[in-house]
Amino acid sequence: MTDTIISSATKEVVIGFDRPFVIIGERINPTGRKLLAAEMKIGDYSRVESDALAQVAAGAQMLDVNAGIPLADEPRILAEAIQLVQSLTDAPLSIDSSIVEALESGLAVYKGKALVNSVTGEEDRLETVLPLVKKHGAAVVAISNDETGISEDPDVRFAVAKKIVERAQDYGISPADVVVDPLVMPVGAINDAGRQVLTLINRLRTELKVNTTCGASNFSFGLPNRHGMNAAFLSMAIGAGMTSAITNPLHEPEMAAIKGANVVMGRDPNCVSWIKTFREPAAEGSVEMGRRGNRRRRRNA
Amino acid sequence: MTDTIISSATKEVVIGFDRPFVIIGERINPTGRKLLAAEMKIGDYSRVESDALAQVAAGAQMLDVNAGIPLADEPRILAEAIQLVQSLTDAPLSIDSSIVEALESGLAVYKGKALVNSVTGEEDRLETVLPLVKKHGAAVVAISNDETGISEDPDVRFAVAKKIVERAQDYGISPADVVVDPLVMPVGAINDAGRQVLTLINRLRTELKVNTTCGASNFSFGLPNRHGMNAAFLSMAIGAGMTSAITNPLHEPEMAAIKGANVVMGRDPNCVSWIKTFREPAAEGSVEMGRRGNRRRRRNA
Repeated sequence: MTDTIISSATKEVVIGFDRPFVIIGERINPTGRKLLAAEMKIGDYSRVESDALAQVAAGAQMLDVNAGIPLADEPRILAEAIQLVQSLTDAPLSIDSSIVEALESGLAVYKGKALVNSVTGEEDRLETVLPLVKKHGAAVVAISNDETGISEDPDVRFAVAKKIVERAQDYGISPADVVVDPLVMPVGAINDAGRQVLTLINRLRTELKVNTTCGASNFSFGLPNRHGMNAAFLSMAIGAGMTSAITNPLHEPEMAAIKGANVVMGRDPNCVSWIKTFREPAAEGSVEMGRRGNRRRRRNA
Repeated sequence: MTDTIISSATKEVVIGFDRPFVIIGERINPTGRKLLAAEMKIGDYSRVESDALAQVAAGAQMLDVNAGIPLADEPRILAEAIQLVQSLTDAPLSIDSSIVEALESGLAVYKGKALVNSVTGEEDRLETVLPLVKKHGAAVVAISNDETGISEDPDVRFAVAKKIVERAQDYGISPADVVVDPLVMPVGAINDAGRQVLTLINRLRTELKVNTTCGASNFSFGLPNRHGMNAAFLSMAIGAGMTSAITNPLHEPEMAAIKGANVVMGRDPNCVSWIKTFREPAAEGSVEMGRRGNRRRRRNA
């Protein structure tokens, strides 16, 4: 039972084995969003603002903030975006950059305990990111690749995750503050990607006892009906033990899959959250209910 | 690794641990369908015909046929319905009745190896249904309740399933020809119903080494957005090891969840079935793809 606590100035979110699944909204990320990139570069954060509010309204408990714009002053932009988002919502943030100076400037202005996204198993990353995480009392996403790249072998990815958790401990960071991304591979390219990552998620939970996160939509790369595939994958990953995901809360199929999985796992007591989200006239459901109910009742009479 | 082979005169379907999930279409069942019941009672099978064709077209590999109509001649009607359905489609059938005489008359006219639906752990059912299953070389659905009713304790339901499998062996029926229905309870009434049944499905597979089926829609009894909840439950049940379900293949969310779970489990090589079902213009997918892809590539550079 591992709880990873992330907070803003006024709100705590817990990523944990027996907690409702934590959705980290992925939208505030200019990678592949030309308009957002251009706006952020000139200091126009109107879309950051609307994306933040929309994602929280849609059910994201946390928000990822990324300012990776080519040839831009990423440390400044990331800090400004974080300050803006923290002024708008009390959702704790994931500070997302591959540039250490940007993580540093983001952490410097952040109010609360952030999730640093991310460190890998590469030596230079471990040596620069982990001290920063420790200094700010943050938690960190550990991505299970290293100098040799992303291994297709899930046992290698497990070994890399284990190495990062151990190195974090050397820096005084508790395993509870390391959230491992096992790296979801596209099933269109690797037929065994699903089973591999479900096994890996289970091992991370039972052997390494860490919380997990992922960019779930990588799974459906190249396939039609990506939302449908992401939904099936997310439910099954939650069944296997995954505890959070960096995803788009505005996508209804994925959100229904996550909320449904919370119910299946017994993490939505009395289905309160499900009912609140989907309440509708009971007429259509009642007919089917009666039919299946009767069938079993009759048999059992 | 257990394979349960069901057949019609010309086609085999295999329910198995490493096989694509088998969908048994549930529609040909007058319970709760007043119009269908009235029609079947007077020998009008037009709706049986259209339901059979529609379900096969929607992806059902097998069809359940039930003729449980109060005060009707169920043995005759069931036999007629089976003969009609077998003249229309080569999908193997599940012969569904709580009346032994109806199972008997259905088996008498059935061409191939049927799935008898069902036997329970009740003594009188074991003693009457199992000899019939053996006589016709059929397979059988074993529902894990007995004289004491349906236990809320999954360990009791496991014990009942084990008893049925053992009794079937006494009658010369292989465990591979027993498909256990662990009984899916409504999560709206029993908060732990999801975790319980996932654990039970896993035990049935790993300890008892049998295939499993269920009426998945019981899970969402009383809740809004039943299709969404059924979809999440089905994906997760498949992840836990369930190998077939008696369900409505005309419901798109459930079918997407099942087909998605086949992909996740590596049982849809090269995603051929998924792509065939959902092929669409690639434009929308490509954008997202690029974004997530770039993000990871950049990190790994």
